[in-house]
Amino acid sequence: MTNDILTPTATPPDILRCAYMEIVVTDLARSRAFYVDVLGLVVTEEDENAIYLRTFEEFIHHNLVLRQGPVAAVAAFAFRVRTPEDVDLAEAYYQELGCRTERRPDGFVKGVGDAVRVTDPLGFPYEFFYQVDHVERLAWRYDLYGPGALVRLDHFNQVTPDVPRGRKYLEDLGFRVTEDIQDSDGVTYAAWLRRKDTVHDTALTGGDGPRMHHIAFATHEKHNILYICDKLGALRMSDVIERGPGRHGVSNAFYLYILDPDGHRVEIYTQDYYTGDPDNPVVTWDVHDNQRRDWWGNPVVPSWYTEASLVLDLDGNPQPVQKRDDPSEMAVTVGADGFSYTRKDDVDQGFKLGSSL
Amino acid sequence: MTNDILTPTATPPDILRCAYMEIVVTDLARSRAFYVDVLGLVVTEEDENAIYLRTFEEFIHHNLVLRQGPVAAVAAFAFRVRTPEDVDLAEAYYQELGCRTERRPDGFVKGVGDAVRVTDPLGFPYEFFYQVDHVERLAWRYDLYGPGALVRLDHFNQVTPDVPRGRKYLEDLGFRVTEDIQDSDGVTYAAWLRRKDTVHDTALTGGDGPRMHHIAFATHEKHNILYICDKLGALRMSDVIERGPGRHGVSNAFYLYILDPDGHRVEIYTQDYYTGDPDNPVVTWDVHDNQRRDWWGNPVVPSWYTEASLVLDLDGNPQPVQKRDDPSEMAVTVGADGFSYTRKDDVDQGFKLGSSL
Amino acid sequence: MTNDILTPTATPPDILRCAYMEIVVTDLARSRAFYVDVLGLVVTEEDENAIYLRTFEEFIHHNLVLRQGPVAAVAAFAFRVRTPEDVDLAEAYYQELGCRTERRPDGFVKGVGDAVRVTDPLGFPYEFFYQVDHVERLAWRYDLYGPGALVRLDHFNQVTPDVPRGRKYLEDLGFRVTEDIQDSDGVTYAAWLRRKDTVHDTALTGGDGPRMHHIAFATHEKHNILYICDKLGALRMSDVIERGPGRHGVSNAFYLYILDPDGHRVEIYTQDYYTGDPDNPVVTWDVHDNQRRDWWGNPVVPSWYTEASLVLDLDGNPQPVQKRDDPSEMAVTVGADGFSYTRKDDVDQGFKLGSSL
Amino acid sequence: MTNDILTPTATPPDILRCAYMEIVVTDLARSRAFYVDVLGLVVTEEDENAIYLRTFEEFIHHNLVLRQGPVAAVAAFAFRVRTPEDVDLAEAYYQELGCRTERRPDGFVKGVGDAVRVTDPLGFPYEFFYQVDHVERLAWRYDLYGPGALVRLDHFNQVTPDVPRGRKYLEDLGFRVTEDIQDSDGVTYAAWLRRKDTVHDTALTGGDGPRMHHIAFATHEKHNILYICDKLGALRMSDVIERGPGRHGVSNAFYLYILDPDGHRVEIYTQDYYTGDPDNPVVTWDVHDNQRRDWWGNPVVPSWYTEASLVLDLDGNPQPVQKRDDPSEMAVTVGADGFSYTRKDDVDQGFKLGSSL
Repeated sequence: MTNDILTPTATPPDILRCAYMEIVVTDLARSRAFYVDVLGLVVTEEDENAIYLRTFEEFIHHNLVLRQGPVAAVAAFAFRVRTPEDVDLAEAYYQELGCRTERRPDGFVKGVGDAVRVTDPLGFPYEFFYQVDHVERLAWRYDLYGPGALVRLDHFNQVTPDVPRGRKYLEDLGFRVTEDIQDSDGVTYAAWLRRKDTVHDTALTGGDGPRMHHIAFATHEKHNILYICDKLGALRMSDVIERGPGRHGVSNAFYLYILDPDGHRVEIYTQDYYTGDPDNPVVTWDVHDNQRRDWWGNPVVPSWYTEASLVLDLDGNPQPVQKRDDPSEMAVTVGADGFSYTRKDDVDQGFKLGSSL
Repeated sequence: MTNDILTPTATPPDILRCAYMEIVVTDLARSRAFYVDVLGLVVTEEDENAIYLRTFEEFIHHNLVLRQGPVAAVAAFAFRVRTPEDVDLAEAYYQELGCRTERRPDGFVKGVGDAVRVTDPLGFPYEFFYQVDHVERLAWRYDLYGPGALVRLDHFNQVTPDVPRGRKYLEDLGFRVTEDIQDSDGVTYAAWLRRKDTVHDTALTGGDGPRMHHIAFATHEKHNILYICDKLGALRMSDVIERGPGRHGVSNAFYLYILDPDGHRVEIYTQDYYTGDPDNPVVTWDVHDNQRRDWWGNPVVPSWYTEASLVLDLDGNPQPVQKRDDPSEMAVTVGADGFSYTRKDDVDQGFKLGSSL
Repeated sequence: MTNDILTPTATPPDILRCAYMEIVVTDLARSRAFYVDVLGLVVTEEDENAIYLRTFEEFIHHNLVLRQGPVAAVAAFAFRVRTPEDVDLAEAYYQELGCRTERRPDGFVKGVGDAVRVTDPLGFPYEFFYQVDHVERLAWRYDLYGPGALVRLDHFNQVTPDVPRGRKYLEDLGFRVTEDIQDSDGVTYAAWLRRKDTVHDTALTGGDGPRMHHIAFATHEKHNILYICDKLGALRMSDVIERGPGRHGVSNAFYLYILDPDGHRVEIYTQDYYTGDPDNPVVTWDVHDNQRRDWWGNPVVPSWYTEASLVLDLDGNPQPVQKRDDPSEMAVTVGADGFSYTRKDDVDQGFKLGSSL
Repeated sequence: MTNDILTPTATPPDILRCAYMEIVVTDLARSRAFYVDVLGLVVTEEDENAIYLRTFEEFIHHNLVLRQGPVAAVAAFAFRVRTPEDVDLAEAYYQELGCRTERRPDGFVKGVGDAVRVTDPLGFPYEFFYQVDHVERLAWRYDLYGPGALVRLDHFNQVTPDVPRGRKYLEDLGFRVTEDIQDSDGVTYAAWLRRKDTVHDTALTGGDGPRMHHIAFATHEKHNILYICDKLGALRMSDVIERGPGRHGVSNAFYLYILDPDGHRVEIYTQDYYTGDPDNPVVTWDVHDNQRRDWWGNPVVPSWYTEASLVLDLDGNPQPVQKRDDPSEMAVTVGADGFSYTRKDDVDQGFKLGSSL
């Protein structure tokens, strides 16, 4: 079903970058403790229903909105567009795609103005906006930095059953693939796509979806990420560390995955590479390459493949999740009939792990 | 004379980023020792007349060309454009500006195809190209990294007498100012301008010009820059360190300035911030702010203000240098009648230096 | 059997620090490639039978001797003593213990002079020496450093069935315990013991022994250790990474464990703490604390508990290995009846791992 | 006058390490803001007259006592000794030296028990103690760390006119020289002396004395020191940075010098090397070597040579300061007749600085 999403004739909006995510959390105070006290995100403003957080180098109102709600889920993946007119273009584009859209001249959240939200062809709640309040860019406010300071929102990651289908839709929208994971049968397991000059603004991870896999924030240096782990240990919260820290094969960035109180996954990320040239070399990884997801060959814990957050429709109801028909990356790499290699031509197809318990 | 450079009606080329600099060096072997053995730049190819060097994350043929010649100077500031047609646009644009241009379908250097070189309105030799050979992107080749690995070309910096005049011309060309240094009389001492999403692709430093102030390469982390200093010490070459290391106020990046065997200045730089939104907040610094150039208030050595490299015209002859009429940043900050402050309202107008010898 | 090793009346030797390990490797060239080309240890000298390696801040002849031999094993754990007379004291001390000793005025390896080797009460081949050739201390030779430079030998780690028995013997010898792991029944699973001012010069890991668990080298910073992992990935040797990188609970140091071509385990380690005061606080960890060995709660792979290197007797024959009677740390933490906690009073006794395959 | 200080027959005390400094500050609240709010030292306890501060890895009561007083000065350089009896030995030793001593079984400050203070032969107020309250060692308390966390007290540095005279006295006391600075005429400009296994517990800087040159605290990594500079910039306090950051030649450590509100000098320091062997190689630097104090050849600002803190006698009165007769390091390196070289045999005797203003 790779080509069932039409390519609109309308001009797509000019998307600058992923800008913020609105997530519903079941206990706002507990989530505040996680994102503010533990991770050090900056509170732009807050009320009894929502908290608006940003990173240290951000100048727009927020990169993350936490909203109290009954079901933990993602309400919006919000992208900033280049001009106010691009909001009109987005609305028309998605309407041509047959998607449900909702336009609000005063925005959907505080700090953001005229915006359109859509349920996209993959079932994800996307938002496009230009107007946004400017706040102090705290880049030079070293007096406010903690040792694990998060300096930018880097990307989103979405779980969807059919990666090529999603890829085509996003490429029509103007995204460009920088890296992907495939096998020799042509199955695509994941793809990374960009608008800004980094490896990605969002990615498609093959699996049951639509679900949100993770939101990623960047630090300046790798020791900042190590510090977050050290701090979680000191707080006796090491069990929120799901995977890592480590070096990615895909993207070449240094990473860590942790889980917030609702189980929403957060990645901490640094030092990928420039992708802004139109002929940026696309990197395709073999799904059986044991260094693709962790360059050091450390295992990808099963929950990383299986768990993800629900997403909402425009009425605020969780989207039903479709199963992935294509092979599962976990099954083909570490399942009973799976295999991974460290060196491609090596007859040793074992895993890097020591002998299992 | 701020408006003597006309604004062309022709469409400017879509410039992606600064891509490479071609510099003339008087002793190719000695320069090779500096850029390859000391700084660890990667040799893409070389012959008896020229060496083509790149950084670890680069996928185009080169970021620096060293060419043997009688006079140390800069032959070209080369920018990559988005499409082959943008080379045509560049040629027409500069011709409308009344600049001398030269078009070579086979390029001016190895590894680059169709390109146009111009002597721009400020006297600088600019090049615009799209076609370029792709080479292996060594980002994952940690086995080749040294402790001071240079991973990207970050920016150029040009000395010109009249900064607002140059700024207008570059803005017409599509550059956007991210930061500048001014005084309360409206004199502009320097400006930083971008095409890619970083603080700058080039900058205008007020002074006698046209001259090349520096070329800058980026590292992943600050310790990589400290290592370069440590290595220079170990090689008993510490006298090539001109200024730094330190933290910039402008750009918020960590930096070091060193001098190559011909006195060409090289900056090593890391961790500025994202500037890709069209309303990216412009930061203007007061020239008397002692933390503008070095956030820690360490002095800017006089040679940093006064010394720079000659640039060539399209015949390969050094461009005559015009004197700056506007006040000199050095004079107004550390000259006999100059002053710098750490805190704006502090009546203490002394310098951060200890008592002078 | 905690007190079967007598406390000698003879004065123990004044031990300064762990100084070098002599290990037998089955393929000297292949081991050279590992320790020199991959890890960057410095070759002091070499011949067809042995290679003498040192770290960057070392001034004595070597920290590691690789000797070609049929069976991979450890020939000597060598400690430096304060004076030539302490070699006499060592010889007498071990003779009083009833241990076999061998004295060689010209040393057992190149670069070391008068030394005594013993098979100690736990079956380990210890050496004590004072006389040693001085070589250039390369601390300032940044031109020779790689990004993962090993700067010091930090410690040994020995596997022995009865930790309290070994502890008493080492305490009589002058070692002081800094940290250990116990359970509420008084079983000791491991202990760390020092002579120099760091957390340890050697440690006793409860298990079948005598066997050598690992030798550890220190780096200056944590990124040096991350680099070693990155380099192993680039060389497609990620499968030599056994465990980590991570932060230890015990010692608070940052660590990585890798396996050499013979399966000898090497730890890369940095930033523990000062222990030189006689009342240095001893830290006892609960064996069920999931943050004791990895502060971030990342699992200790089973091979880390089960695998270790044979050690030789004074004739060069492998010592028979005795089984540990006390409970196994692996069994009580991750075995079928084992448990680990992140928070002591938490009723949740699960592991930090995601759901198992 | 090198040998006027007798060598006592009494056994010197066994000194473990420099343990704390008691400094008199003229405005306790302002000093608290500096040491606690800016530098992040941990408050063990405080009252209206004094604040007891420690570093993150310390387990004794304090490493720094700030005491309110009319004249900024140092009241005591306190060293911990190995046993209670060593306090008796210290008292007898200094009495034999003809020094004034004062013994207080309940200590001179909170948290310290039986101690003896002396005015030593160089005029410095030394203290020796064993008994001290234990407090929580915060090494694992990453939740309390700032980005510039100070983890240990590393050393003192004292200004004295006659370095060889002071060296002999300290060697008799049991200190060992690790590094020094001399010229070809045999003049000693400075010496570094140790008890613990680092490069020094104290140092003698040739100059008018007795005065305290600086107290030094260690961080884990170099970026922690860079952060302190960044934070001072953010607080618009960059003018407290006196010199650095940089790499030392002597000690090979990374450093920064800042000035507290009274002008007391504080060094932040990391990564020197192990010195615990009795034949640790002594490093002698040529005073004309421009890389001896800053490995990168950055200038030593004049105030660093000339300014230092008064010290008190046992009545709390400032000690008169004697002038240094030997040549001044500043004069012979950067004075009118001075010179420094980057490469010893280079005929170029210029400084690394650019052309002076």
